[in-house]
Amino acid sequence: MTRKELIEKIRSKRSFLCVGLDTDLAKIPPHLLETENPIFNFNKAIIDATLPYAVAYKPNLAFYEAAGIEGMRQLNMTMDYFKSLSDKPFIIADAKRGDIGNTSQQYAKAFLDPQGEYDFDALTIAPYMGEDSVKPFMVYENKWVVLLALTSNKGAIDFQFLETPEGPLFEQVLKTSKLWGTPENMMYVVGATKADMLTRVRAIVPDSFLLVPGVGAQGGSLEEVCRYGLTAECGLLVNSSRGIIYASKGEDYAQRAAEEARKLQEQMAAELQKVNFC
Amino acid sequence: MTRKELIEKIRSKRSFLCVGLDTDLAKIPPHLLETENPIFNFNKAIIDATLPYAVAYKPNLAFYEAAGIEGMRQLNMTMDYFKSLSDKPFIIADAKRGDIGNTSQQYAKAFLDPQGEYDFDALTIAPYMGEDSVKPFMVYENKWVVLLALTSNKGAIDFQFLETPEGPLFEQVLKTSKLWGTPENMMYVVGATKADMLTRVRAIVPDSFLLVPGVGAQGGSLEEVCRYGLTAECGLLVNSSRGIIYASKGEDYAQRAAEEARKLQEQMAAELQKVNFC
Repeated sequence: MTRKELIEKIRSKRSFLCVGLDTDLAKIPPHLLETENPIFNFNKAIIDATLPYAVAYKPNLAFYEAAGIEGMRQLNMTMDYFKSLSDKPFIIADAKRGDIGNTSQQYAKAFLDPQGEYDFDALTIAPYMGEDSVKPFMVYENKWVVLLALTSNKGAIDFQFLETPEGPLFEQVLKTSKLWGTPENMMYVVGATKADMLTRVRAIVPDSFLLVPGVGAQGGSLEEVCRYGLTAECGLLVNSSRGIIYASKGEDYAQRAAEEARKLQEQMAAELQKVNFC
Repeated sequence: MTRKELIEKIRSKRSFLCVGLDTDLAKIPPHLLETENPIFNFNKAIIDATLPYAVAYKPNLAFYEAAGIEGMRQLNMTMDYFKSLSDKPFIIADAKRGDIGNTSQQYAKAFLDPQGEYDFDALTIAPYMGEDSVKPFMVYENKWVVLLALTSNKGAIDFQFLETPEGPLFEQVLKTSKLWGTPENMMYVVGATKADMLTRVRAIVPDSFLLVPGVGAQGGSLEEVCRYGLTAECGLLVNSSRGIIYASKGEDYAQRAAEEARKLQEQMAAELQKVNFC
């Protein structure tokens, strides 16, 4: 998906919501476990219920890998389902990959290749190994790298805030990596739990889309994220995983997920109006 | 595998060789592509041929993921084959994972859980997200985290050498992370292409095992690595991937792999003798 198409999708839905598909067999409603494809059935119900309110989905690879080959098969089914939709969302593989060049090429093939099994729009990448670990992900047209800059977890403080000659490490990651791509093929992960840092992020990457996790279960505030992060072209994808998909563990899980997604979409519409986006 | 068992294995084989299984359908001998399980068949032949000379194997997940679900199935067959051996080597998933705590837990389950599909001994982890992204990998007994410190690729210079208040970032990663585990459950990746840096690494983690990639195809020297990195308990696993497994693309690939592995093992035996290890 191109940046222009993504922005149009946000405008038409008045939403920049990304729904995280952290689908865990230990957490989905128990009645689904009796079905043949519980992971896929859960995902499909969540997608159908939340699609009116969401522009993006983010399957978290760890959860599918933890379910073994069966998990990967049902991720594959989920991707096929996305492709069958007329309103096809932006789909991010939350995989935190990155390795030496010839290995990153293989990860890119696995996740982004239009001829491959998954054909995601984007992939999250860890920056530690530098330029030649990231660039191989940029060879596919209209596909995106989502680079970790400032994460939402407690451990972010261990290294991301270390002072380097040009500011804390996460700022240096932004400054260096923005030369590797463009706002048309690179986004950054910036955690909602550190919303005030968004001002510093925006000073370095004023136009880039930011993927913002941490709203909801992790305690981040949507209003704060918007205050510091929203741009004239939106520039945000705000992710909620557990707060939506596990809103209920009963048979009403899809309906409750839709309600939570709708609440976030309504708040997002109000924020987009404030900046005259739509 | 415990540290003690690993050291005993090194002593009995007079080798600290790790064979990287970067099994690529585009690079394996073409006649294997006509078989039902070409990835597994290649791996099995390489393992059988090199096991007398190697103490560890390192499947690189990217290559299996790039082959889709079929690739993961054949990785699974490879792991089952390892388990069937009486001389079971130390097996590292080269996966470069790491995410927020509840997600790292899932990756740990996927790769290290003795009840899981793969049951690796160790997993490579990227440090960028800090302590709570790494510690969930330490819950399984006698399993190992192999944390990236200083990688063998060109892009290592982008961030790993940035000056922080306590030295370059890779030194800070070593200093901080060594408090998260022990030399019984943590190793570090230190690239052979930067062998002189091993002195600085050893000043911080004198006892930890180091997994050293980059000998062979990437240009690192085994002698230099040993000069700066070898300890009284060996403390090194030196990996070679392409230099061994793609030594020949003909029908003699396994025999040629054995020859390359044996050459490295002989050099290693000589180095181990120098430090009176065996």
